[in-house]
Amino acid sequence: MLRSAEQSIFRRSNRPRPSLPSAEPVDAVTALAAQCRPGWSLPGEFYSDESIYRADLDRIWRTGWLFAGHSCEIPNPGDYFTLQLDTDSLIVIRDEEGTLRAMHNVCRHRGSLICSEPAGHLPRLVCPYHQWTYRLDGTLVACRGMPETLDKSQFGLQQVHLEEVDGLIYVSVAEGPPPFQPARDTVSAFAKPQGLGRAKVAKAVDYLVKANWKLVWENNRECYHCNVNHPQYIKANFDHYNADDTTPRIQKQIDEAMRRSEERRAAAGLAATHKRGGMTCFPDAENNIWFSSNRTALVDGFLTESMDGKLVAPLMGDYKDPNVDTLRIRTLPNFWNHSSCDHGVSTRLLPTGPQLTSLRVWWLVAKDAIEGRDYDLSKLMPFWQLTSEQDWAICERQQRGVNSSAYIPGPYSTYKEYNVDGFVRWYLKVLGS
Amino acid sequence: MLRSAEQSIFRRSNRPRPSLPSAEPVDAVTALAAQCRPGWSLPGEFYSDESIYRADLDRIWRTGWLFAGHSCEIPNPGDYFTLQLDTDSLIVIRDEEGTLRAMHNVCRHRGSLICSEPAGHLPRLVCPYHQWTYRLDGTLVACRGMPETLDKSQFGLQQVHLEEVDGLIYVSVAEGPPPFQPARDTVSAFAKPQGLGRAKVAKAVDYLVKANWKLVWENNRECYHCNVNHPQYIKANFDHYNADDTTPRIQKQIDEAMRRSEERRAAAGLAATHKRGGMTCFPDAENNIWFSSNRTALVDGFLTESMDGKLVAPLMGDYKDPNVDTLRIRTLPNFWNHSSCDHGVSTRLLPTGPQLTSLRVWWLVAKDAIEGRDYDLSKLMPFWQLTSEQDWAICERQQRGVNSSAYIPGPYSTYKEYNVDGFVRWYLKVLGS
Amino acid sequence: MLRSAEQSIFRRSNRPRPSLPSAEPVDAVTALAAQCRPGWSLPGEFYSDESIYRADLDRIWRTGWLFAGHSCEIPNPGDYFTLQLDTDSLIVIRDEEGTLRAMHNVCRHRGSLICSEPAGHLPRLVCPYHQWTYRLDGTLVACRGMPETLDKSQFGLQQVHLEEVDGLIYVSVAEGPPPFQPARDTVSAFAKPQGLGRAKVAKAVDYLVKANWKLVWENNRECYHCNVNHPQYIKANFDHYNADDTTPRIQKQIDEAMRRSEERRAAAGLAATHKRGGMTCFPDAENNIWFSSNRTALVDGFLTESMDGKLVAPLMGDYKDPNVDTLRIRTLPNFWNHSSCDHGVSTRLLPTGPQLTSLRVWWLVAKDAIEGRDYDLSKLMPFWQLTSEQDWAICERQQRGVNSSAYIPGPYSTYKEYNVDGFVRWYLKVLGS
Repeated sequence: MLRSAEQSIFRRSNRPRPSLPSAEPVDAVTALAAQCRPGWSLPGEFYSDESIYRADLDRIWRTGWLFAGHSCEIPNPGDYFTLQLDTDSLIVIRDEEGTLRAMHNVCRHRGSLICSEPAGHLPRLVCPYHQWTYRLDGTLVACRGMPETLDKSQFGLQQVHLEEVDGLIYVSVAEGPPPFQPARDTVSAFAKPQGLGRAKVAKAVDYLVKANWKLVWENNRECYHCNVNHPQYIKANFDHYNADDTTPRIQKQIDEAMRRSEERRAAAGLAATHKRGGMTCFPDAENNIWFSSNRTALVDGFLTESMDGKLVAPLMGDYKDPNVDTLRIRTLPNFWNHSSCDHGVSTRLLPTGPQLTSLRVWWLVAKDAIEGRDYDLSKLMPFWQLTSEQDWAICERQQRGVNSSAYIPGPYSTYKEYNVDGFVRWYLKVLGS
Repeated sequence: MLRSAEQSIFRRSNRPRPSLPSAEPVDAVTALAAQCRPGWSLPGEFYSDESIYRADLDRIWRTGWLFAGHSCEIPNPGDYFTLQLDTDSLIVIRDEEGTLRAMHNVCRHRGSLICSEPAGHLPRLVCPYHQWTYRLDGTLVACRGMPETLDKSQFGLQQVHLEEVDGLIYVSVAEGPPPFQPARDTVSAFAKPQGLGRAKVAKAVDYLVKANWKLVWENNRECYHCNVNHPQYIKANFDHYNADDTTPRIQKQIDEAMRRSEERRAAAGLAATHKRGGMTCFPDAENNIWFSSNRTALVDGFLTESMDGKLVAPLMGDYKDPNVDTLRIRTLPNFWNHSSCDHGVSTRLLPTGPQLTSLRVWWLVAKDAIEGRDYDLSKLMPFWQLTSEQDWAICERQQRGVNSSAYIPGPYSTYKEYNVDGFVRWYLKVLGS
Repeated sequence: MLRSAEQSIFRRSNRPRPSLPSAEPVDAVTALAAQCRPGWSLPGEFYSDESIYRADLDRIWRTGWLFAGHSCEIPNPGDYFTLQLDTDSLIVIRDEEGTLRAMHNVCRHRGSLICSEPAGHLPRLVCPYHQWTYRLDGTLVACRGMPETLDKSQFGLQQVHLEEVDGLIYVSVAEGPPPFQPARDTVSAFAKPQGLGRAKVAKAVDYLVKANWKLVWENNRECYHCNVNHPQYIKANFDHYNADDTTPRIQKQIDEAMRRSEERRAAAGLAATHKRGGMTCFPDAENNIWFSSNRTALVDGFLTESMDGKLVAPLMGDYKDPNVDTLRIRTLPNFWNHSSCDHGVSTRLLPTGPQLTSLRVWWLVAKDAIEGRDYDLSKLMPFWQLTSEQDWAICERQQRGVNSSAYIPGPYSTYKEYNVDGFVRWYLKVLGS
């Protein structure tokens, strides 16, 4: 049913936009990026400076693929949701043919927002100001009051690239986004058996975190902070251990768990994964790998990432047995998902200012699961709600610290923070290119 | 009783103010204005950029005549109100001789605000900090603690030009504002019979609208949006129709209403008006016409702009008969008034930021009308309260849209939005001059 | 027990910090300062402009000695409090040896705040993010997860200079702050007999005042405004009178009070003071005197600065007799204290934005005084709580006025505002140097 967004006609005005001379010292950002010390945290300006934030938006957020939401949120033609990327509002909608579409939520007449609600259902996209009316694919079909000579084909809503992979919707506001196929292959191998395309949103929670988006990612890219900060998380996971600093006893435990886990997966025909417990190596700046997925072992006694390890919902997707360990998907710059046999948890970042990030966390269960009968939010949510909110508090505290004139970059642990370093290298590479 | 503000001595220090090099690329604003496409909406920068907002203030708000309030709000010597133009607080006061005066609300000693309240009554203007004391005309009369040698005549409050026309008070912070007489002639012909100078404020409501002031005006300058957005308003008015897109049946209805209306007015000796129902052509950029007034027909069955068309207060001004249709006055950059036989509604804009406009709406009735006996706010207010608040919601939604990086100017309807185009042309002309 | 902060090793990275080209026209600030008219108030930019605020921070707040708090607030090893200087959080703590220490509250690893609470007690400074652990003197002692090769001696917390004088703690974030000894001598002569080092905080109240920090000081440096604004204060003090504008009767009253006061003090062996009632001359720009103390007479019938002049707490410090008049200490840029025989009141300023100042007011009593038995907050606090809050309201009103484009500097009274002028001269001198 889905038609590739690549086939859409991207109707951008060719008329150059008049503009004020930029206040952003763009070359200075590139120069600053080049001066950063490899293996050390970024200078404070990267977390608060307005011109660096603008560069982040232009060079990263407006060029790459952004996770937008789940296809199960808009199952029927006319269903839509909106999302806000800095000053831009986007509509993600299922059109009359069932095709997923994304476009700028800006009327081509005088620029009013068309959809003001976060989500809903509409037979047509009608601007509330003067009722310019667009089909669900963005084609202008009516503009009463305008001269007959107006060429409607020139005034469709501005399209945004969209790709869907097994229930996960990605959009790109770039004119020419990078190829999506490599990400599709990697993500699909895990999202498909998990049934993310046959899911239901049990709950979504929005957060406004007073921290630069990169601090949120840096926090995500290591479990060095887990022992003390995530008492729930570490009961279920091995991430806080590393191959090179665990005791032989614990390493044996991990190895055992990994072995059993692989056996089970082989039996179930599930995708292979990396051999280390917990953190996978991601991102890969040198090869421009902005996506990754893997499955990793849970601690014995944990069938799922719940408070006590017991199931909190019916099995999802293709799973016949709860012993599937835990699946993780991440795509830069704004998505990660942790899924267990019975539920999945997606997290989306959207930059809202140099020191402000909007975050949404979704809890997904099998499509047919019924609240109260098949799952309880009070059992389903705490594991990731607590873990997420613990992380937001960490990020806000770090933001306050790196704002200090006394903050100077510090060294990353080579075996605990290799992925933070990887993230920073990826970031600087994209920023400088 | 009124003395022209032109006679006042404007006591500005001749000492040049030291200043930092301006961060505002002023020439860039002029250049950008020159690039705008005629007949199309303005580029997004005009609604959000700080330097354009500064240019708007300097070239439009600080040069022209601003509606401040009604003379009936300050009937007695010592009565005053304050208003805030961006960072500037102004006092409008009736002095000891009964003359209306406007001055900067800034003590000449160390700059404290003198009046902190929005309105009140004072025998003298006494700075609350060190009690420097000014007559109601701004003359410094006492400054205990200062050396005897201080020449008080050099330290009067800084005067602001003021003109009153039949109850409407205008001020200008310009050193040399444009002539007021043409506006006076135009406005007086309508404000005088309406009795705006013999009125009473029944109620005033303040709004803080999250939109650039120009979006508020553009919204005001067309009724293209009325059909769907203003269900109350369109019952009473013909504005949403246009000569060139109405059905013959409706056009006949309008023609009939206009003819009857003109007959009635001729009989009552009221000023003539334009021949089209509803929107008059305004402003006129080419002839620099920033003021206009007209009377226009109401729909049959509507004696006044109330919810059901029935009177909501005693007749105002010179009216002996309710059949006077509806009167409209507008002056750029910050005022419009809609008056019916029994009440008037004034709206004042004040810019409060690139994306913020302070608005006040006043409901006026005849001077001697008594609440509860002659009028009820619950009958008097809804028509314009609903219509105004519907417009503020539209403006805020449009602001969010034009903030998008994807917003590009769109074409104005030549017969529905000629006045929006006129406003934009007027704006760009003044901005560029 | 106290070790001079000068002996500390200030561990700043020698690696130059990469930085964006500064948006601050620093030379323009110096040039503007040079243009200010002597004896007149400052141009409006000094109270609102972002680049001047940055210059104030860099040239005044980050170079001088700042009052931080009282040593009695952190009596035991591990006791600490934090304070916020613009974007910088500082920890003031008593270390394992009992030495007072100040350091930047920024982990040397990835910059997280270490202490999030305003005050508390800690056996070690442990970063909540990854548990890097510092001794109370800032030495890094543990950083699990980092390579063994990490040289911990290079990663201590960044030290801030600290000096304590008889219970008052001063800090400086400068690399080389000015000598403290002259201030110590001046302050100690008054703080020591007052027993500020043997005190207890009865109460502290925080304020966020919407005014530039200089407006707060200018307000503090004159009592020209006292008559009308401080009805409580003027009952107890002579400040609002000046040698050159009082009636002979009042001057005789003041002289009498001063004479009696000096006799009492001579008998009690207390430090001599200046001969004028009330305001002492301070600061002294020409001699760079940023500190001063004096004792001055209270009005007959007032033993202390309380609402009725009666004692509100047990005698403090060395006092055996309540007749010690009132003591005042002030140090630029951020401290003043008024103390009576039975209690002291300290005020601390911290700049929080061009138009925002954080203020804390502490009420101090003798160390062993017990609330409810020896003092009641309802008697202890009103005199200075009312007086302080009256001043904050004045400052906020003045800020609104000097923000006006119509504000122009005005002349200072040569005998009422000599100290405001002195403050401005001191400020401009430091700013321009």
